[in-house]
Amino acid sequence: MDVTHPRPVRVVKFGGTSVGDIDRIRKVAARVQRIVDEGAAVALTVSAMGRSTDALVATAREVTPRPDRRELDMLMATGEQVSIALVAMALTHLGVRARSFTGGQAGFRTDSLHGNARIVQVDAEPLRRAFQEIDVAVVAGFQGVDDHGQITTLGRGGSDTTAVALAAALGVEECEIYTDTDGVYTTDPHQVPDASKLETIDYDEMLELAALGARVLHPRSVWYARRYGVRIHVRSSFTNAPGTIVTRAPRGQEAAMQTDRPVTGVALDTEHTRINVVGVPDQPGVAAAIFAALGEAGVSADMIIQGVPGALDSRQQMSFTVPRDLADDAVDAVRPVLEAIGGGSVSADPDVAKLSIVGIAIGSTPGLAGRMFAAVSAVGANIEMIATSEVRISVVIPRSHAHDALQAVHDAFGLARPTATP
Amino acid sequence: MDVTHPRPVRVVKFGGTSVGDIDRIRKVAARVQRIVDEGAAVALTVSAMGRSTDALVATAREVTPRPDRRELDMLMATGEQVSIALVAMALTHLGVRARSFTGGQAGFRTDSLHGNARIVQVDAEPLRRAFQEIDVAVVAGFQGVDDHGQITTLGRGGSDTTAVALAAALGVEECEIYTDTDGVYTTDPHQVPDASKLETIDYDEMLELAALGARVLHPRSVWYARRYGVRIHVRSSFTNAPGTIVTRAPRGQEAAMQTDRPVTGVALDTEHTRINVVGVPDQPGVAAAIFAALGEAGVSADMIIQGVPGALDSRQQMSFTVPRDLADDAVDAVRPVLEAIGGGSVSADPDVAKLSIVGIAIGSTPGLAGRMFAAVSAVGANIEMIATSEVRISVVIPRSHAHDALQAVHDAFGLARPTATP
Repeated sequence: MDVTHPRPVRVVKFGGTSVGDIDRIRKVAARVQRIVDEGAAVALTVSAMGRSTDALVATAREVTPRPDRRELDMLMATGEQVSIALVAMALTHLGVRARSFTGGQAGFRTDSLHGNARIVQVDAEPLRRAFQEIDVAVVAGFQGVDDHGQITTLGRGGSDTTAVALAAALGVEECEIYTDTDGVYTTDPHQVPDASKLETIDYDEMLELAALGARVLHPRSVWYARRYGVRIHVRSSFTNAPGTIVTRAPRGQEAAMQTDRPVTGVALDTEHTRINVVGVPDQPGVAAAIFAALGEAGVSADMIIQGVPGALDSRQQMSFTVPRDLADDAVDAVRPVLEAIGGGSVSADPDVAKLSIVGIAIGSTPGLAGRMFAAVSAVGANIEMIATSEVRISVVIPRSHAHDALQAVHDAFGLARPTATP
Repeated sequence: MDVTHPRPVRVVKFGGTSVGDIDRIRKVAARVQRIVDEGAAVALTVSAMGRSTDALVATAREVTPRPDRRELDMLMATGEQVSIALVAMALTHLGVRARSFTGGQAGFRTDSLHGNARIVQVDAEPLRRAFQEIDVAVVAGFQGVDDHGQITTLGRGGSDTTAVALAAALGVEECEIYTDTDGVYTTDPHQVPDASKLETIDYDEMLELAALGARVLHPRSVWYARRYGVRIHVRSSFTNAPGTIVTRAPRGQEAAMQTDRPVTGVALDTEHTRINVVGVPDQPGVAAAIFAALGEAGVSADMIIQGVPGALDSRQQMSFTVPRDLADDAVDAVRPVLEAIGGGSVSADPDVAKLSIVGIAIGSTPGLAGRMFAAVSAVGANIEMIATSEVRISVVIPRSHAHDALQAVHDAFGLARPTATP
């Protein structure tokens, strides 16, 4: 152990619901006090209170329909800053030595992609030094500063990433994410009541589920955890029960023993919009130009399909999905490319959903795609796009069939919680 | 002119009422746009929206009755951070090139006295550089960072100080303070309807009025303006009419011409609490120990009186006034001193008011004190404490008589607006 660490450090994170009002903030403080009483220093990451980030964004949109992203970061960062100050006060009120840290103060350096910045470096020294004097460092999730001292945000759910990055920087094995569910489920229990809780889940599986809209963890936090070997413990803010451990599952032969359940989870994502680009002159470099423009606009496209050149003319078409709040940016980025090329049009279709099955053995287990497509078709959903990887199979379907298809696929792979037999 | 200043810079400040809601923020942006259209770059200081700072403090007090001051600064600083982001968005929406700056980003370095920090240095380089690319730098008033990178606040009204300090740092002669009144009055027109507007007022007079509770300007801003020779133009957010210029008035012989009106204004301050220390053993160094303790607690005492040692015993008494929100801190600071001395008790009396007359010729005009005391006594107010300086005479009276005494003194010195003769 580092000589500057007189005590073990626990890295914990409480989300927006857990600090949603003064009463809950007091409960978080009391819970963290118990951890301190057990002899640990605590690096505590908190999110903005409840829906306060949404409220800030809504206020910004009252001022202007398309707020400057740098200014939006300046605005949104206040949400966590309020939380950390109040939580630190609540801890101090209990006699716990606590101090709040903005992202920048806690050593978070990011790139300059406002609204969706990536952590470049975390300097753990400010917290290490602080732990010589205090018990709890209350760190603002979701934010950092770039090389120019500008405040940046990590994008939605970025507080998870903050917590995991703190664990990595502090050399702590486990990052505890306290949330309003008690772990990771085979799918969203709000939509599928018989979804079952997983004891463990592999990073890659969790990464796919998170990327696909399972809101329990931010994908970048899982990516970060995998990269730095930080175990994530997703657990309930309200109980002491163990939750779900996100870690590295056995691969290869060991994994083969688990293929009786090749699908770990099913995810439904209704937060993406399908962008359709049609009537594009079929010439080399068109796709490259379009995706270069998207990249410059900070838009990551997912599930890209490009149509086979038609027999009747030489025009191309292409579809891809983007996060819904970036759909306007995507359209704006593509339009000038089409104008430069001299043809084609771009439009956005928000009425789509992406349904995915996830499991680390999917790539090595034949027949899963067929079972999934059959379940989707059985509820009358037309499959518009398909994408596969080693650990998942995704389909884009009309949003109107999303819920039925989710339940059908969850059933088809036997993921329901066993019914209690009396 | 500095070669890095391609355009003149105007330094303007809008208070919390002026940015109280989205509609008003739009109006501020439109007004600032007109200044930009006239060819100036604008260093725009804004306060927190409306009563949002009060709301933040109230929230903190829900968490704990005595919030940690460092955390309170962390919390309160978000108020201005919200304003600057929204104002910058509103300007950008109008096509004005704008960027927001927290106090720290705008180069404000302060000492570490949280809640009432003093500006140590303002580095104008960030704004000078920014003006090569933008038209308006929207600067968060009221805040800075100390040498350790901790966020500090300048105390209530500190946004005025921010604006004046920016003018000084940028080498701009005039700082325009836009407010919800149209200038500085002989006294608070809300309390005395026939108060008259002043065309000009001397720094020292304004300093006294501001220190005494005239809310139009923060005393530290006036002190700063006097020290750096920055002219303050207090003017209305809602009209284009000239307001009141705070500047250096003639002294000595020139001033003698003005002694037909030796009193410039009357101020009533009900924001102070009287602290009474009684039964203290009369030994050397007691007062020094008490005021050292107050200083350490960050409490400035005003209007100190110490009783003459009594004939009957050798016990001392002492009274002083402190800002109301520091009264608890003052009592807490004094109590251990008394315990160490072995006697005496301390109590707080909030039911007092301080009434003052202000004018740069007061010290050289005989008879003013008598006229003031007569007016106060005529309304039945008992004068509990008296303090005088070259430019003011103050009395502490029971709060119940405050309003009547204010009107009487205002009348006694002929400060009422001339009645329009039809």
